[in-house]
Amino acid sequence: MEWLYDPIENPDVHFASLARQHQKKLSKPQGSLGQLEDIVIALAGMQKTIHPVLNRIWVSVFAADHGITTENVSAFPQTVTVDMVRNFTEGGAAVNVLSKFIHAHFEVIDVGLSQTLDLPKLIVDKLSQGTANFLNRPAMNIDQLEHALNAGKNAVTRAVSKKSQLFVGGEMGIGNTTSATAIACALLNQNPKVLTGSGTGLTEEAIKHKTNLIKQALLKHRKNLTTPLEILQFLGGAEIAALVGAYIFASQKQLPVLIDGFIATIAALVAIKVNPKVRRWFFYAHQSGEQGHQFILEELNAKPLLDLSMRLGEASGAVVAVPLLQMACKLHNEMATFEQAQIKLK
Amino acid sequence: MEWLYDPIENPDVHFASLARQHQKKLSKPQGSLGQLEDIVIALAGMQKTIHPVLNRIWVSVFAADHGITTENVSAFPQTVTVDMVRNFTEGGAAVNVLSKFIHAHFEVIDVGLSQTLDLPKLIVDKLSQGTANFLNRPAMNIDQLEHALNAGKNAVTRAVSKKSQLFVGGEMGIGNTTSATAIACALLNQNPKVLTGSGTGLTEEAIKHKTNLIKQALLKHRKNLTTPLEILQFLGGAEIAALVGAYIFASQKQLPVLIDGFIATIAALVAIKVNPKVRRWFFYAHQSGEQGHQFILEELNAKPLLDLSMRLGEASGAVVAVPLLQMACKLHNEMATFEQAQIKLK
Repeated sequence: MEWLYDPIENPDVHFASLARQHQKKLSKPQGSLGQLEDIVIALAGMQKTIHPVLNRIWVSVFAADHGITTENVSAFPQTVTVDMVRNFTEGGAAVNVLSKFIHAHFEVIDVGLSQTLDLPKLIVDKLSQGTANFLNRPAMNIDQLEHALNAGKNAVTRAVSKKSQLFVGGEMGIGNTTSATAIACALLNQNPKVLTGSGTGLTEEAIKHKTNLIKQALLKHRKNLTTPLEILQFLGGAEIAALVGAYIFASQKQLPVLIDGFIATIAALVAIKVNPKVRRWFFYAHQSGEQGHQFILEELNAKPLLDLSMRLGEASGAVVAVPLLQMACKLHNEMATFEQAQIKLK
Repeated sequence: MEWLYDPIENPDVHFASLARQHQKKLSKPQGSLGQLEDIVIALAGMQKTIHPVLNRIWVSVFAADHGITTENVSAFPQTVTVDMVRNFTEGGAAVNVLSKFIHAHFEVIDVGLSQTLDLPKLIVDKLSQGTANFLNRPAMNIDQLEHALNAGKNAVTRAVSKKSQLFVGGEMGIGNTTSATAIACALLNQNPKVLTGSGTGLTEEAIKHKTNLIKQALLKHRKNLTTPLEILQFLGGAEIAALVGAYIFASQKQLPVLIDGFIATIAALVAIKVNPKVRRWFFYAHQSGEQGHQFILEELNAKPLLDLSMRLGEASGAVVAVPLLQMACKLHNEMATFEQAQIKLK
């Protein structure tokens, strides 16, 4: 897993500065495009050009099963993970519709489903058939963790080979808000009460149950939760590990990353704890409706683009934000300058 | 101006209800698309169909000059209004780039420029060559007000004739945040200190000057500011009046309206005070960076879709929000149901 620590370059400040100067020449009051200006200036640094473009968007959704589902932590049965993976391959899920709308390349990867599915459009890249119940045992062994991180790296390798200009990662896995919340609590030394939410739609009582399970798991594994990778291994989520691997490798490859909601943000947090310079390559798409997301975004000092009370996962919130990034580029590249439009300011 | 008070139908609750039921069948946790669900349910009621679509978007930008600019209320000289109108007709402004991105029909209408421009793409529909300085006199006479309201109606007539599915109005007029702020203060009986902001980029000192001018104008005209239309006439903005007329007529024609930023929201407020049922046909695109906008949105109990610190006007913030409305429709119409995807929830 040494590659995780390979160096990450910073975006180029020279091109960011040229883009900032170009923004000042455009026929509008300075700063009047708000965050759209910040986006394109950041992208200019990442793409090393005054005129960044986002035509080729790559969407990878990682799917895996969770042993913790035996503890009744979700409003949906575990089988829904596999059912939804089939739905992804058939184009019926939210992220499919959205990816089509923005003309993105979409792929779904089995990084740890409990079943082996024979679906032509499904990429299978796994070592485990679902994680262990982390209430009793580590969610993954070290080989499973390494494989999942590499599955994320492999997705980015495919994205880079197609000259993608933005990487969007998503996840599917019934039970994975429990896993992700446990990871966030361990990383931030935070009380599960603060970060545990309703996931796909738990009742108040069921949220209490989920909170207590997370507390128990943190207590049981406390001696083994000393590094971000140990936390990831013990509290699991192969799809969360795949996102961590993807985010780190994308940053190493200087491929901008758009972070989705609650679980993706926790994967981003793990990635930052492993290799802090990744954060320079991240955009945050949205504030989700899941309790705890705002807390984690604030920890990361992240200002997401959208706040639409979405809480679906599967990269959906991130894909919804893509047109904003594309419009930021179009405005920057296609607007007339004051000079071109012959506008006299005095 | 009797047409302003013509009846406005409510969106159809039956179709809204059918759309709400359809949302519950889609392969996602209930409510997990957040505001995107609310949007499409509202649109279903407006379009009287379970499956609303937003393929044909109409963008009208109304431009006019303001006598109040002689009092130095803007960071830009008055001539910029005309220069920007030329820029709109040449496709170089922000709203042009954005309208092209969403494949909208775009038009710009002179409803009160101080010059007569000979530009093939410019629609001219005016009775005044700029408003009077409302510090001394009423901004418009009654005929000028009526003409400007009708210019908005005429734009909607064109939009309806092309079977547009969403009306987006915008404005251009150096000095018009001063006019709009004065109107809002009069309508809401609010202190100008609360609502006056930097417009295109005033210094703190210049904002104080602007605030004082608004106070003086409100004092001078106080006896004539008793109805929303008097307020509109005396404090002016032919482009603001055109937006008011457009919003009211669009609602009468059952054409959904997407409200832009600060000035457009104040026009929406005037429209609501004139004919309250218009509000059922409005979506609010964004919270702008202009001080006072949040206050007015809260008065309207409006929850805008975006908060990107944009403060450009010319319908730009609204057009940026259009893909969100379109994605809401696509998700609703193209996602598989749980049944279609054969997903078992028990």
